[in-house]
Order: sequence, then structure tokens, then C-alpha cells
Amino acid sequence: MITAPGPTLGVVGAGQLGRMLAEAAAPLGVDVVVSDPTEDAPAAPVARDQLVGGFEDPETFRELAERVDYLTFEIELVDPDVLWEISEETDTPVHPHPDTLALIEDKLVQKRRMAEAGIPVPAFFEVNGIQDVLDAAEEFGYPLMLKARKGGYDGRGNAAIYDRHGVEAALEVIDGPAMVEAYVEYERELAIMGVTGEDEIDTFPITETIHEEEILRETVSPARSDDETLERAREVARDVLEQMEGRGVYGIELFETPDGEILLNEIAPRPHNSGHWTIEGCVTSQFEQHVRAVLGWPLGSTERRSPTVSANILGDVEERQEATLYNLDRVLETDGCNLHYYGKDEVYPLRKMGHITQLGDDSGDPTQLLEATREVRDELTFRDG
Amino acid sequence: MITAPGPTLGVVGAGQLGRMLAEAAAPLGVDVVVSDPTEDAPAAPVARDQLVGGFEDPETFRELAERVDYLTFEIELVDPDVLWEISEETDTPVHPHPDTLALIEDKLVQKRRMAEAGIPVPAFFEVNGIQDVLDAAEEFGYPLMLKARKGGYDGRGNAAIYDRHGVEAALEVIDGPAMVEAYVEYERELAIMGVTGEDEIDTFPITETIHEEEILRETVSPARSDDETLERAREVARDVLEQMEGRGVYGIELFETPDGEILLNEIAPRPHNSGHWTIEGCVTSQFEQHVRAVLGWPLGSTERRSPTVSANILGDVEERQEATLYNLDRVLETDGCNLHYYGKDEVYPLRKMGHITQLGDDSGDPTQLLEATREVRDELTFRDG
Repeated sequence: MITAPGPTLGVVGAGQLGRMLAEAAAPLGVDVVVSDPTEDAPAAPVARDQLVGGFEDPETFRELAERVDYLTFEIELVDPDVLWEISEETDTPVHPHPDTLALIEDKLVQKRRMAEAGIPVPAFFEVNGIQDVLDAAEEFGYPLMLKARKGGYDGRGNAAIYDRHGVEAALEVIDGPAMVEAYVEYERELAIMGVTGEDEIDTFPITETIHEEEILRETVSPARSDDETLERAREVARDVLEQMEGRGVYGIELFETPDGEILLNEIAPRPHNSGHWTIEGCVTSQFEQHVRAVLGWPLGSTERRSPTVSANILGDVEERQEATLYNLDRVLETDGCNLHYYGKDEVYPLRKMGHITQLGDDSGDPTQLLEATREVRDELTFRDG
Repeated sequence: MITAPGPTLGVVGAGQLGRMLAEAAAPLGVDVVVSDPTEDAPAAPVARDQLVGGFEDPETFRELAERVDYLTFEIELVDPDVLWEISEETDTPVHPHPDTLALIEDKLVQKRRMAEAGIPVPAFFEVNGIQDVLDAAEEFGYPLMLKARKGGYDGRGNAAIYDRHGVEAALEVIDGPAMVEAYVEYERELAIMGVTGEDEIDTFPITETIHEEEILRETVSPARSDDETLERAREVARDVLEQMEGRGVYGIELFETPDGEILLNEIAPRPHNSGHWTIEGCVTSQFEQHVRAVLGWPLGSTERRSPTVSANILGDVEERQEATLYNLDRVLETDGCNLHYYGKDEVYPLRKMGHITQLGDDSGDPTQLLEATREVRDELTFRDG
């Protein structure tokens, strides 16, 4: 039987995802304690408490585990072995399973496992030196995408190679264990937030994602693909979810090729930027859904309430500085435009500082909704004057 | 120009209204500090900080004012004179204006002012002794409603008088400055959340409210009244708002008589239980709207997104005890049913402990939605086993 106050949830990581998790947990009567190496991280003011400590630090994990009933994480930099050890030692369940985290953390291992499971992925090669890249070029041709196996985030850890002359430079940029992928010519990128509950899996409506410099800029839901392609995307997402161990929300990023083929791009074992639109756009948000899943509670409805576009607010500055976002007036004046400011003290180039979510109506055109949302977002700036 | 991080908001009172205000402020990049006499009050875990101190304590108000840019309150027990004094002394704007709080705090003063402004109110008399009640009975007949002028809440401070024999007992219950009202035979009760911004006023869609023992049990939106009556209610609400000084959200409770007349019942100078449904039911919630209004920001859209019913979760126990709410399963299993648990440590008879909000669809019947929501709510209990 489920009771309130509910179990207490410990979240490793206290960035914007932790913040939005805490915002979603409060109405459920679930207290959240977060941990993060940065003091007063974005989630701190809305969580019950924040512990200060690193993502590989057993002492921090232990202290967190001792204060909560369930553990989860909102960042892939967490050491899965240490997390598992502390979870076992303190008898505090952790979801998703750290094995899944380990699987996803290493992009080569992730791709191999998915390919073995019959999930369509771009062609890839393990890279231990220059010869591996040249072999890949021989087989797939240029351009190639060189990716760090671990630690990549928002385009960091990725380097495109357009010809033979770019190989050495790319290897220098990545500087460590890597993999190389055939470059995918895609019609558009799609994302599906999937969720694994205690004895059910479900998916949120498919979103179109728009990246620039490999950083997500906007999401459009419903995605502007045909129904058949969307159905195929949903099938791939469900196949991916079957490979995940442990409960929680997973972000599944896909390519839609010009001939309507679906390829898996990447998986995130946590709520994901491409699902922020669900806060206002769906009956249950990805954050509430993650809380429900981790606690083993029944999942909420993933139904979409309105066509929805979200647009990221990124650092548009030249260098790291104290953050003030100017020109919020139009965001606040626009009917159905919702602000989510993450409360980060400092801004640097392309840092994710917040997002806006614009609700549309069923009769509207998603492309117009996207354009209107971009216009409002583009007035925002961190540049003084 | 509006910037983020936004101004910091100080809220006197840290009950469920303060909690839901803090939940709404976080995405706007607005930090909230609350004050309350009870340590670790409901709003504490989601606010930046809680100060501990009484609602008439200048030291607490001063400490709060010195930490924030704007002050507001979520409870009428606040001393308006002290609040105004500290606001002036620390040069920290407070909204709504403490004069409005003073006006509303005293039900007799409230009714007089509204009557003078031409707003329809039930007939009333000032009560300084038994003769005043007898005079009222002479003029209006029984039943009468005796009300404490100050401090009434959720039915406390009200006493119905059905005949001459009940007069003394009622006066004893109220025990202090009072007023008496003609009992209103009503078809239904309605409520409108109104909002006064910097240079605009607006109203949320009208809600039907269902009380038992003078405690709100459920709200139904849209209200099941005819369009003409709803239009009249909206006009009365706008007239009331014109009388309010200072920005913020106001709860305006109305009677709809059998012949479609609208009478003002009571005003609350703050977000109100009858507006909780706006969290999921409207584009902007009453809590976000209050934050926007107090800070002088543009108001959000008050449009309703779906037919919506809310149902309060009240203490169903015999005596004060530690609170555990049982049987949450069905709430969580029901599509579109949203839980708001207020995190109060103790439950006592009829204490407001939380609410659920059920979203319906446009084709549905509000009466059926109400019945379905009650069924889910009625499974909840604080009674062990």
C-alpha cells in the first residue's frame, strides 16, 4: 500500500534535472535530498537538503544513502561501481541499475549491446589509434563522427572528420578511448522519453529535436514525421527499454533518415532535455514519472495535453561570468509561454541556463509554433546592455 | 526590464499556500524565503529558507524583509500594522497592501466597505451584544449566521442560529466582536480567483465550490451555472477587485441564489483553496499568478486548459496524531489524477492535509467528473488499518 509522506529520494547530481525532479517530487509528498560537488547547486533551494561531494566519492554516496529510502542519479558522470557498492552496503535500492549506467556511460559498449539486441544503430568501429579511423573511412567513407567513449556531453567529446586531413586533429581533440561512427544523413532527429516501471513500460509522445553544434536548441511535439515512421520509432524505443535494467525514465535519441528508417543515436539513463516539454505538455511530466518509477509507484498517464514547443536558453556570452538573463518581459507577456530558469550563478558559452515551453492549440501548425517560440527565446540574452 | 534571477520573495506564513507558492516561484528563477511560527512548516523543504517567528512579531518581519526584495503573506492572521511598519522601515514593498488585509481581516469592515461600493452582500448587522442579534432576527428572521469579526477560518468563528433559543449559545461560541448575517438560501456556491497586476486586473474561470460544515470539499470548473449567472458573477468579482489596494491574487467567494442573483460571501487577500485546481487546470496557476502580480510582472494567461475537479484531503481522525495517509494507490493509478500532499507532520479532525486534482476532457460531464474524483478521494484515510 502506498502512503504519504512517501519514501525519501536521494538524487546524485543537483543540476537542472535534479531541480526539476525536486519540483515534481514535492506535490507527491516525497522529500528529496541531492548531492553535488558544487555547493548551492541549482537543485539545492528546492530540495530538502544538498550534500556536497563528488560523483565518485563513496563517503558522499554513503551519507546520502543513509538519509534516504531510494537512490537515483541525474548525471552520467557517476561512478557505477561505487554507487552499486554503497547501495548494497546500505541496503538502499538504486534505480536505474548501475549496470545500465555503466552500459550507457561507455558509448562503444552501449552501441555494441544495442546492435547485438537487433536495434538499428549507425555503423561504428572501436578506435584505439589512427589505423582504426582509417579503416572506418575505408569502409564507410567520410564524413565520420569520432566520439569519446566516456564523458561526452552536449557536443563535448564529439569531433566530426570530413577528410583524411582531419583525422589527427580529431584524435587529438578526443584524446582517449574512442569510437567512430558513420555520419548519418538524417531527415530529422527524434527523441522518445521511455519509462520502465515496476511491471510496465511506457513511452511519452515522440518529440522532434533540433540541434545546432550538437546542442539541443528546440523540441517540437508532435514531431513532424509521418505516422508510419513514428510507429517505427516507438518500436525501436520499446526495444531499447527492454535492454535497460532497473526502473526509471530514459531519454532515447533517434535519427530519422530520408527514407524513413530509424536509427538509435544515444540513450540517457535519466530525464532528458528532450523531455522538458512534458512538464506542461503532458498529463504527467518526465520528472514526476521518474520519481514514480524509481519508487516503484504506478506510472502516470503519458498523454499529451497540447502541441508543445520548448526552446533552450543557452549562454550567449564570450566567457564565463556571473549570470543575469535580460529581456524576460516578452516571455512573461506571451500567453502560454512558461519559463524554467535553472538558477545557475554563472554563465559560460552555450551553458544550459533554462528553457521556455510554449503551449499551442490542436488546430495550430507546429512549424509556426516553433517559429513563434524561437522569436521569444531569441530576445533573451546574458549580454549586458 | 525583467531579469533572472528575479527578485527574492518573502512570504509570511509557510503552510500549504506558502508551499505551493514556492513550488511555482522556482521555475521563474524566484527564490522564496518564508516565515512561520511552526518550525519546519510545510513550505520549508521547498523554499530557500524558513524563519521561525509569529505573525505579529516585528523582529521576524524585519529579518524577513532584510533578506528579500518583496513581501507578501499567505494567511490573514498577520498583523497589518506591524507588517506595514516594517515594510516602510526596510523599504521593502508589500503586496497586497496591509490596508486591504486590515479591511478583509475584519468581516464587518469588509462587508460595510463592499456594501458601500454597491457590491451585493447578504444583509448584516454589527453585534455588540444579545440585543443586536435579536434586532437582526426581527428584521431578517431565522436562521442567522453569527460570525466572529476576526480570525475565522474553515468554519471556525462561525455559528448558525436557528431560533431564539440558540442565540446565547452562539454568542458564547464566538465570544468576541461579531457580526450577524441573514442566512442565504443558495443554489450553489461559486468562487473566482481574481488578480490585480501593476496595471491590469483579470479573473480566472469561475469555479463551483462545495462545502460541508463550512469547509471546502470539492471544486468543479466549469461551474454548472448558466452563462448569464456566470457573467454576473464575473462582474461582481471585478467590482470587488477594484476595491482592493495592492497587487496580488484574491479569492472571491460568492453565493448564487435560486433566482440567479449573485451575493458576495467572503474575500481572501491571497491564493485560495478554491483556486488550487488552476495548477493543472489553467495555463497559469493562481500561485504563479500571485508571484507575478506581487513582483509587478506581466500576468499570465488565466485560460482553462481542461475541465477540472479538485477534492480536498481532510483529516478523518478523532484526535491529533502523527500523519500517515493510506491508500494512495488508486490516486496514482487514475489517469489525470494529480496529488498535492502538503507534508504536515500531524493530522487532526478536518485539517487540510492535501488535495487531488482530476483533469477531465471537454466532452465529459462535470457531474460525472466530480463523482469519479470523490470516489478516488474517499479511499484515502489517515486511520490506521
